[in-house]
Amino acid sequence: MTDFNRHPSSYKHWQLQIDGDIAQLRMNVDANHPYRPGYELKLNSYDLGVDMELADAIQRLRFEHPQVKVVVVGSAQERAFCAGANIWMLAESTHPFKVNFCKFTNETRLSLEDASQHSGLKSLCAVNAACAGGGYELALACDEIHLVDDNNSAVSLPEVPLLGVLPGTGGLTRLVDKRKVRRDRADVFCTMAEGVRGKRAVNWGLVDATWKKSQFADKVQARAKELAAQQPTKAERGIALPPIRAVVEGGKYTWTHVQLEVDAAARIATLTVHGPKGPQPKNGAEYAAAGASAWALQCWRELDDALLQLRFDHETVGLLVLQTRGDRAALLQVEKDLFADRGHWLCNEILLQMARTARRFDLMARSMYALVDKPACAAGAFLELTLACDRVYALDDDAVQFAFGPLSNGALPMSHGHTRLQNRFLKDPAHAQRLATEQPVLSAPEADEQGLCTYLLDPVDWADDVRIALEERVSMSPDALTGMEASLRFGGAENCDSKIFGRLSAWQNWIFTRPNATGDEGALTRYGAPESAKFDWRRT
Amino acid sequence: MTDFNRHPSSYKHWQLQIDGDIAQLRMNVDANHPYRPGYELKLNSYDLGVDMELADAIQRLRFEHPQVKVVVVGSAQERAFCAGANIWMLAESTHPFKVNFCKFTNETRLSLEDASQHSGLKSLCAVNAACAGGGYELALACDEIHLVDDNNSAVSLPEVPLLGVLPGTGGLTRLVDKRKVRRDRADVFCTMAEGVRGKRAVNWGLVDATWKKSQFADKVQARAKELAAQQPTKAERGIALPPIRAVVEGGKYTWTHVQLEVDAAARIATLTVHGPKGPQPKNGAEYAAAGASAWALQCWRELDDALLQLRFDHETVGLLVLQTRGDRAALLQVEKDLFADRGHWLCNEILLQMARTARRFDLMARSMYALVDKPACAAGAFLELTLACDRVYALDDDAVQFAFGPLSNGALPMSHGHTRLQNRFLKDPAHAQRLATEQPVLSAPEADEQGLCTYLLDPVDWADDVRIALEERVSMSPDALTGMEASLRFGGAENCDSKIFGRLSAWQNWIFTRPNATGDEGALTRYGAPESAKFDWRRT
Repeated sequence: MTDFNRHPSSYKHWQLQIDGDIAQLRMNVDANHPYRPGYELKLNSYDLGVDMELADAIQRLRFEHPQVKVVVVGSAQERAFCAGANIWMLAESTHPFKVNFCKFTNETRLSLEDASQHSGLKSLCAVNAACAGGGYELALACDEIHLVDDNNSAVSLPEVPLLGVLPGTGGLTRLVDKRKVRRDRADVFCTMAEGVRGKRAVNWGLVDATWKKSQFADKVQARAKELAAQQPTKAERGIALPPIRAVVEGGKYTWTHVQLEVDAAARIATLTVHGPKGPQPKNGAEYAAAGASAWALQCWRELDDALLQLRFDHETVGLLVLQTRGDRAALLQVEKDLFADRGHWLCNEILLQMARTARRFDLMARSMYALVDKPACAAGAFLELTLACDRVYALDDDAVQFAFGPLSNGALPMSHGHTRLQNRFLKDPAHAQRLATEQPVLSAPEADEQGLCTYLLDPVDWADDVRIALEERVSMSPDALTGMEASLRFGGAENCDSKIFGRLSAWQNWIFTRPNATGDEGALTRYGAPESAKFDWRRT
Repeated sequence: MTDFNRHPSSYKHWQLQIDGDIAQLRMNVDANHPYRPGYELKLNSYDLGVDMELADAIQRLRFEHPQVKVVVVGSAQERAFCAGANIWMLAESTHPFKVNFCKFTNETRLSLEDASQHSGLKSLCAVNAACAGGGYELALACDEIHLVDDNNSAVSLPEVPLLGVLPGTGGLTRLVDKRKVRRDRADVFCTMAEGVRGKRAVNWGLVDATWKKSQFADKVQARAKELAAQQPTKAERGIALPPIRAVVEGGKYTWTHVQLEVDAAARIATLTVHGPKGPQPKNGAEYAAAGASAWALQCWRELDDALLQLRFDHETVGLLVLQTRGDRAALLQVEKDLFADRGHWLCNEILLQMARTARRFDLMARSMYALVDKPACAAGAFLELTLACDRVYALDDDAVQFAFGPLSNGALPMSHGHTRLQNRFLKDPAHAQRLATEQPVLSAPEADEQGLCTYLLDPVDWADDVRIALEERVSMSPDALTGMEASLRFGGAENCDSKIFGRLSAWQNWIFTRPNATGDEGALTRYGAPESAKFDWRRT
């Protein structure tokens, strides 16, 4: 079982130091602690274990240290800021692991941008030495990049010339779409193994500033203080995030509010989420007093963990069946209270956590079916998850109900910015708007009429129809389903995020599987070997 | 040498019949005339040869028959409207051919949409029988889809369930982005081999209308007349399009205004385009009198042909070197005259042809470098091609000049709607706007300062620097370059077109190479065989 729990007290690869409203997050990868044995993590190169700590640090900054207004992302090593994803690790990994690793590192970087945009936590990247590949992609995810000017240290994306693969963590997209680097300069930069340094890096827009080595630490610190001074104060102290761990028995994972039941033979996993039980905090102050065990945080952190378990530990599961459970009124009351006090830093963070988890759900490379039967609680954020599924199977019974809530109108946006209602009703935006603002409670037949159900099934046929539907889905080509779902799930708008997942991931998926990269004579396989790669030169 | 020239008098697979302002374009594929021997084109399934005729027919409607306001796309066969791309052809084709085939069919369908949007040529698809896969994708490219209601004929995209690949001609994107079909219905539809028919097809938005068989022909004809009545009259008669053919000697292709020199060993092709020589038509009436031999049409049709030759017949060429030649004043005068009379149907068509060709250029899966040296004519639309390249190498000499023209300000948009200037200066839209409206003439050093050159090279170093640059480029992984270029060339906006090429093509590229599709036990390979496909079930 992949354990995503990390804690700063036992980080092996990062140092997190908090000094007033500024945090220093320094990479210091222990070469001898790879996530899996078989390679060394030299020059601050990273693997999944390193990135789990980074993801953990960002989460803790958001929840445990709301007083922090700026995080300075740096390196504790003199010779390297970060050399990117470890090449030996990539070369040894299976295709599914590589894809899931890239998806996770992408989500981590997006959470850094999300924190800047929505939590008042700005990020400043202090590039003190060589910064290559995924290292520069981490820098690109920060608000500002400051590069040391020592006639040596450069930023670079050497994947194409050295490895025959793409920068897999959003680098290409962020270059032209986020930093708006001129496309021909981006082309030169991405084909230049040695990268770009000094003033040229500034002129090309690859970094924001460059400083002599003697001044570097001072200038970075001064800028961090400046940025911090521009951010409002949120709170003096946060709440502790205890680990999230399921009890696992066979294929059954049990958390407090979430269950995941994996039927490996059928290649189907059933994910059940439960609404709140017992009294819940009524506002930000009560949430701060209650800590992480409040349902709204605990449940969604558990859901996040469940999705990651499924991605990394159950690659052959093709279909995720969503079941929602709980008391609708209690669930909607929690959402109402959170939303009403969303100006409170912790309510805000909890809502953002829910939104990120819902996006991780959207991005599962698995088919997803929601079952809305009698015990279902298709309400509020659980309805959001329901509508995130590829299909909604509802029982034709007036007692089965769908209910919108205060979070239905934009609090939980998809990667491309649309709400799931807007995305569903691209043809009729007014209808999406009406449902989002009126927030009706609808019986299953009404919900079907309003366009929320894919199938409204007769109770007599329910069990058989559902069983057949699941069996049919998992019989189809997993690759074709991934490509199809990626194309159908995200209609309408596009942005940097959706380009990273929709476009870059697709190209990378292809390139990773090609002999030119991963064949015996491929560039990734042969990296560091005396023979150079051999290519099939046909361009497609 | 692939010959893209076709003529209605010798079509093998289509019937083009013109009756006043309505054209009937009926598919009637001759099963015994495949493009390459080895398969039969049953049930109106198509291959490259069939699509070449379709592309030709659309071109002829635009240029030869401007009186036509509506084209009814139908079938002359009773049993099938169109079964889509021929599966045996796909299963036997190489990966590069499949990809280029899909790109060509996509461009053909986009030209149909382009004609509707910009030429007043509306399209109405008359689905008289089964309409599957690429057949339905052709329908999706039409303005309206009318389906016969005979309790049998359905529209379908059976690629995922039957073949383990994606609909490769824009079907997924057009479903959710163009027709805005609800995503869960799109999911059901795309996994349902039998498709959807009758009222349900209308309710789901898959077609626009359905008619009883007895009424079908009349209703379609009536609607075609209605649509035609809404379109303004352009002209009574058009101009003839003679074939476009190069003289080929070794690797050298020579057209009138275009040359292509393929160095197969170096994997480099040099494309040279020449500006107008001698007197050119001054307005639409003169163009109509001059016919297709006027430079503005002839040159760009030749360029289009050159790009297609390169795609299909020189798969291993990794780098396209663009050279522009000619008299700047003459070139800009032609553009000025065309643009001034763009309300004339033929000037409009010629400009649209230039725009489509420039987009075909953008979409070459080859690296593209422009050389701007002393003989270069980096002006107007030739400057547009120059800026479409991944890099611009300019000679540092005041005599070398760049000049914008009347077409620089939006007449030749990229697939995603930006001009190439907007796309280049995403960071500084005002700068793009200034260049586009002021249309300055700039020396190479000035052009460099204004951001138009990637490299400004000293005359002494020119030859060596260029040679090294070309050699370096073609040494890199062709797959990684394709993915990189696709990501860097199209920044900023996205639309249906760019999603089709940027996202769908990437997924398809991947899926086509996977054993799950094309391996010995893959779904595409095993289609029609008694054994079902075997899949590697890992989802990525």
